Amino acid sequence: MPSKPKPQNSYAILGTGALGGLYGGMLANAGFDVHFLLHSDYQHVVDHGLRVESIWGDFELPTVNAHQSVNTMPACDVTIVALKTTLNDLLPELLPSPTGDGGSVLVLQNGLDVESDSAAVVGQDRVMGGCCFLCSNKVGPGHIKHLDFGRIVFGDFATPAGTISDRTRQICDDLVSAGIDAQVSDNLPMVRWRKLMWNIPFNGLSVALNASTKEIVDDPYACELADAIIREVHAAAAICGVDVANEMIEKTMENTRKMVPYDSSMRIDFLNKRPMELQAILGNPIAAVREKGGEMPRVEMLYQQLRFMDARGMP
Amino acid sequence: MPSKPKPQNSYAILGTGALGGLYGGMLANAGFDVHFLLHSDYQHVVDHGLRVESIWGDFELPTVNAHQSVNTMPACDVTIVALKTTLNDLLPELLPSPTGDGGSVLVLQNGLDVESDSAAVVGQDRVMGGCCFLCSNKVGPGHIKHLDFGRIVFGDFATPAGTISDRTRQICDDLVSAGIDAQVSDNLPMVRWRKLMWNIPFNGLSVALNASTKEIVDDPYACELADAIIREVHAAAAICGVDVANEMIEKTMENTRKMVPYDSSMRIDFLNKRPMELQAILGNPIAAVREKGGEMPRVEMLYQQLRFMDARGMP
Repeated sequence: MPSKPKPQNSYAILGTGALGGLYGGMLANAGFDVHFLLHSDYQHVVDHGLRVESIWGDFELPTVNAHQSVNTMPACDVTIVALKTTLNDLLPELLPSPTGDGGSVLVLQNGLDVESDSAAVVGQDRVMGGCCFLCSNKVGPGHIKHLDFGRIVFGDFATPAGTISDRTRQICDDLVSAGIDAQVSDNLPMVRWRKLMWNIPFNGLSVALNASTKEIVDDPYACELADAIIREVHAAAAICGVDVANEMIEKTMENTRKMVPYDSSMRIDFLNKRPMELQAILGNPIAAVREKGGEMPRVEMLYQQLRFMDARGMP
Repeated sequence: MPSKPKPQNSYAILGTGALGGLYGGMLANAGFDVHFLLHSDYQHVVDHGLRVESIWGDFELPTVNAHQSVNTMPACDVTIVALKTTLNDLLPELLPSPTGDGGSVLVLQNGLDVESDSAAVVGQDRVMGGCCFLCSNKVGPGHIKHLDFGRIVFGDFATPAGTISDRTRQICDDLVSAGIDAQVSDNLPMVRWRKLMWNIPFNGLSVALNASTKEIVDDPYACELADAIIREVHAAAAICGVDVANEMIEKTMENTRKMVPYDSSMRIDFLNKRPMELQAILGNPIAAVREKGGEMPRVEMLYQQLRFMDARGMP
């Protein structure tokens, strides 16, 4: 058995769900000191640990550092924010304890400008942001099922494009050594807009049309609409100064066609009567492009439809 | 009792539903010779006649000229096409008998360019088109409930804007003498686009959002979206050479706010698993404005969503 790399950083995971449970679990499984914040699953995880089924290999962690409150968490080198953005109001309460005096924050949340809420608490210089290209679901208490993809691409929040801090490189090394497909980027806005090119059409339409990604790409009209929305987001990114390569338009659709049939996180939230991440995923990009004098009519329409559905709830 | 005006024309009603049943019934009730084509309600109407509840006055017609087939219909002076446009494939079979050698055709169907199908059968010079601003439902066999509004505005199909034929004026006199709020117009495209400013947003969104008109106007986001669609249709009309007055934008919304809570015909069709009039109400206007080099992104999105829903049927 090869010796594991010497752990470099300790980690706090805020939100032990489909994303935090997978990546935090992999870090813990690799020997890193990982502290998990849990809510409804707390007692189950204390009793039974974490169970991860993953295309990268299944594993169980019978004992983990489970916390019901941040007050029992030690200061960690890195705090991964894996909560839904709809819970960002809690960050002023959640971040101080695990980040301590100098800990970093890696924001793995969907949407645009989602790092600001963390930066407002700990200061922007300690904040990184990243996107996960991941199909993963929490299928039971403390039980994560990772179905497809899984890459994390992340970078520094406040530094100018073209630079990557040592801290960011070191965290990437940790993630890679734990078997996670992680990459650093010197252009976080680019990473975020690329992800929005998937998130806006497929999260949005999966709720508006009450459909899986497979149903969307299999129908000629829904597929044409998804394509039009992808192009609208791509053009909006350019208006905001982010030139995503043209081939990403076709690639976004192609990846979705190859994807396992998947319920987007927004659809799962809606079906489970939880708030949807409408502000972060649609509202913030709409505001950003409007500020630059542009517009995304289809994305605005989708946002209005989803706001209506959100207010009314499941029919 | 005042003497009724001497009937001028005989009428054939193709489609004795919410619209044909109301207007045809009022003509018959006023003493005109009216022949009704019926399908599923035929035997019920033979046995029990027609029953109309209307904001203009309730009435019953114990005996009407009911026909199960056009073959038993006499040639009439005027044939009113009150079928859904989704049945227009039947017109070559339905129109020859009631129109005879010289009868006129009044197309009271929703959408754009819907007169063409009738014109292809009888020739364009005999065709008029019109829009009904009407809330009416068929609530049972041979039983019509007219809830709100009711104006018919119609004009000649093939004549240049600015002209009104004597025949059109005479038919309008008949309708008015029967108590119907009818008006002639010398600009049919204007009438059609004005109606589309209501039909596209409120028929379309009532299905896409699974909502009544009241739910739409009562929600700030859905209302904002309906307003954006109304403006898109208004601008598209101008691109097509039809300058609808600006105040119609606000008036369309205002009228809908004042309207009784109403299920649009498209929503009723969808809920009853019948085909929706997507081509006439959305597809034709989209094609017309594209032909002029313009586009309606929100309307196209709505069309794509409705096509998807139509193909999948009720969830």
